[in-house]
Amino acid sequence: MNAPLPDHVLPRIELRPVPPAMLEALKARFAERCSTALAVREQHGRGESVYDAAPPEAVLFCESNDDVMFAVRLAHEHAVPVIPFGVGSSLEGHLLAVQGGISLDLSRMTKILAVHAEDLTVTVQAGVTREQLNREIKDSGLFFPIDPGANASIGGMAATRASGTNAVRYGTMRENVLGLTVVTAAGELVHTGTRARKSSAGYDLTRLFVGSEGTLGVMTEITLKLYPLPEAVSAAVCHFPSIDAAVRTTIQIIQMGVPIARCELLDAHAIRAVNRHSKLDLAEQPMLLMEFHGSEAGVKEQAEIVQELAAEFGGGGFQWATTPEARTKLWTARHQAYFAALQMRPGCRCQSSDTCVPISKLAESINESVAEAEASGIPYWIVGHVGDGNFHLSYLMDPDDAAEHAAVERLNVLMVERAIRLGGTCTGEHGIGLHKMGYLVQEAGEGTVALMRSVKQALDPKNIMNPGKVFRA
Amino acid sequence: MNAPLPDHVLPRIELRPVPPAMLEALKARFAERCSTALAVREQHGRGESVYDAAPPEAVLFCESNDDVMFAVRLAHEHAVPVIPFGVGSSLEGHLLAVQGGISLDLSRMTKILAVHAEDLTVTVQAGVTREQLNREIKDSGLFFPIDPGANASIGGMAATRASGTNAVRYGTMRENVLGLTVVTAAGELVHTGTRARKSSAGYDLTRLFVGSEGTLGVMTEITLKLYPLPEAVSAAVCHFPSIDAAVRTTIQIIQMGVPIARCELLDAHAIRAVNRHSKLDLAEQPMLLMEFHGSEAGVKEQAEIVQELAAEFGGGGFQWATTPEARTKLWTARHQAYFAALQMRPGCRCQSSDTCVPISKLAESINESVAEAEASGIPYWIVGHVGDGNFHLSYLMDPDDAAEHAAVERLNVLMVERAIRLGGTCTGEHGIGLHKMGYLVQEAGEGTVALMRSVKQALDPKNIMNPGKVFRA
Repeated sequence: MNAPLPDHVLPRIELRPVPPAMLEALKARFAERCSTALAVREQHGRGESVYDAAPPEAVLFCESNDDVMFAVRLAHEHAVPVIPFGVGSSLEGHLLAVQGGISLDLSRMTKILAVHAEDLTVTVQAGVTREQLNREIKDSGLFFPIDPGANASIGGMAATRASGTNAVRYGTMRENVLGLTVVTAAGELVHTGTRARKSSAGYDLTRLFVGSEGTLGVMTEITLKLYPLPEAVSAAVCHFPSIDAAVRTTIQIIQMGVPIARCELLDAHAIRAVNRHSKLDLAEQPMLLMEFHGSEAGVKEQAEIVQELAAEFGGGGFQWATTPEARTKLWTARHQAYFAALQMRPGCRCQSSDTCVPISKLAESINESVAEAEASGIPYWIVGHVGDGNFHLSYLMDPDDAAEHAAVERLNVLMVERAIRLGGTCTGEHGIGLHKMGYLVQEAGEGTVALMRSVKQALDPKNIMNPGKVFRA
Repeated sequence: MNAPLPDHVLPRIELRPVPPAMLEALKARFAERCSTALAVREQHGRGESVYDAAPPEAVLFCESNDDVMFAVRLAHEHAVPVIPFGVGSSLEGHLLAVQGGISLDLSRMTKILAVHAEDLTVTVQAGVTREQLNREIKDSGLFFPIDPGANASIGGMAATRASGTNAVRYGTMRENVLGLTVVTAAGELVHTGTRARKSSAGYDLTRLFVGSEGTLGVMTEITLKLYPLPEAVSAAVCHFPSIDAAVRTTIQIIQMGVPIARCELLDAHAIRAVNRHSKLDLAEQPMLLMEFHGSEAGVKEQAEIVQELAAEFGGGGFQWATTPEARTKLWTARHQAYFAALQMRPGCRCQSSDTCVPISKLAESINESVAEAEASGIPYWIVGHVGDGNFHLSYLMDPDDAAEHAAVERLNVLMVERAIRLGGTCTGEHGIGLHKMGYLVQEAGEGTVALMRSVKQALDPKNIMNPGKVFRA
């Protein structure tokens, strides 16, 4: 048993069936790339959220813009829901086919369409993953910094306005998408943005689609900013007597304007999991995992400032990782924290929630959430992109214990409402999906959500694009 | 005589009169803050574009959100156009009341509402100018970097998605607005965004309003990112044998990832004007005016790299300005280039157009535009935020010479169409306004402009917000 769907999506009103004629037309075009097998449908109707799968009626493995246009046009004609799918790493229930419909799997659209190394831009198909992208452009001397942890697809990352470990220096998908090719809800192909670094030409449709969670159209091609690989990179871990001390160090780093490239918090629970999973022997106490990018001298200078700041808060045991191998080992461990943590409670399911607050409120935001988590007795772990004021609190829930589900949800309410009260947001990078629809209204207000709804109705009048997500359409 | 309105806004279809009852209601509330004097109306119906003024019927000097809501609600009820006004420095005809209506002058809304120095954010009323803002936060050790040259209002800068000299390092208004208070077309007050540095909560309405040129609502309060004043700042000028050499140096600087804070091109014509106006004795040949921000060592390092690169392209005569006074002198001269140039041809009117291209195309983009300008015989001058691939070509036109107007417009077509062909945009930072509506369609395509139109219709169904601008509603 997984978590039941939240009240606001129950009952699954208005299941909109795929008419037989439409299914026939899809099968005729997609052949074996149109699957109605239950296992395939269940895998596509779930993601990494705690909810039961809500499988779509069919999964289409798209290979081209034409495939996507063909499917969306049929769906538009028959008013059938369309849910774009990347690698399925979504955490907030984005992929559940709560109104039925078809899943458009873009994971085969993996072409790097154009590398313009001289302009520091690249255009990719939506199914390219961030690891594939960085592998394929390695020889250009450039890299794409956005790193949400999971090896997500660029399309999925754009859809949830993802960010992750490097965002403190390089920004999020909001800042790093220059342009898009989108299949609209009517099945038309449009382009937004250009390859120029800035523009004042008309409405910023690029950023309207980025973060729209599949509810406004299907992004099929994405033009991204790239960055020169830094001359020098150095990573360090530093241990602290408390989470509070680590967070206060972070606040100082940011307020002083140190251009730190990564500033990650791991609590003792996360480190314990990582140690066991990745066979490391990190001290099992709160830790900052940091990275510095720049010239040799610049990196040294940043590291010295940070070491001084950390010392003021009792941080010590600096361990440096300057070789690529040592750095990879540390960051691999960080990236596997999610799966490592799952293994700490066999058979559990993880509910991971993220909030983001103004940096001066980060200590309050984390400390109070930790106190609540400790008091609950439910296993939890914390990692955070704390340089942004963003952290993740994840509970390891017994999937058969309804009371524990309910307790976790109550804890989540406390954490999210605190973030909003502190001037922050109910989600820094996971998105609204199904889970946070109520919090979006709390955060933004009814009037602002009404504007979002107007935009949705304008661009998707039949409400076929990932319906039932973000807000009630 | 000024330039006639372009064909696509003529005839001034559908002048929508302010009903007497509405005018009475406005006068009752605003009293002497409601002006119908011709001089006031003409000043508010023009800006810095080449067009004849198209005055609104009344100008309201707003002092609060309530003032704005009151006026917009009346306008909404009577379907009367509303044109927000900051300081009037718009260049593309944004302020012309081509369908009549009322101008909302926000220049008295000059409160700094909240400085959160510890979070590097500030919230201001829309009428605060960038110079006022930086003056008032000086003691916090922070600054707001966006600098379009003119001492524009923050509201106006947000409306046109402005950028300017610092954008190469700090981004544009797109990257630096965290949240907004907006009076919608129905006169409702809504808030977008939060003070958190990032968020995945729902549609990015903040960036939808930023750059919407007053056509979707009235931004009355703006929350901005601030930055710590750099430990060290140093400015330098460097002269080049040709514009091409200066541009190629810039391309290398960007491609190498040097974190230069400002990288401005001035051509010989601009320098001649600046020398005369500001009593300087800069060599009258193409010049880069650069600024470096960072630690003492970091600034030195950047400057050394740039000097080496410049030398490869024949750049020389580096002159450093490390004292605040020396830097202020240089940047003041740069900022006065516009007014300095106007004085080079007494009685002239300046048509300034800007484009932005991927950096590798910048040399081609500028060189061909310069060749065309030279061949025309019409006085011109060039400045550019070349680190972004962005430059401005400005012609000094005889206002009584219709043939010259037409020639300048033909030259502008060539420049803009070239930028679009090279993968760039028809405007890097001035906006579409009236002048570039046709180019927006060329750049984005009919389908994409149709999406913009849908958004406009959804948020402003009566088409009262700055109607007739950006695209045909």
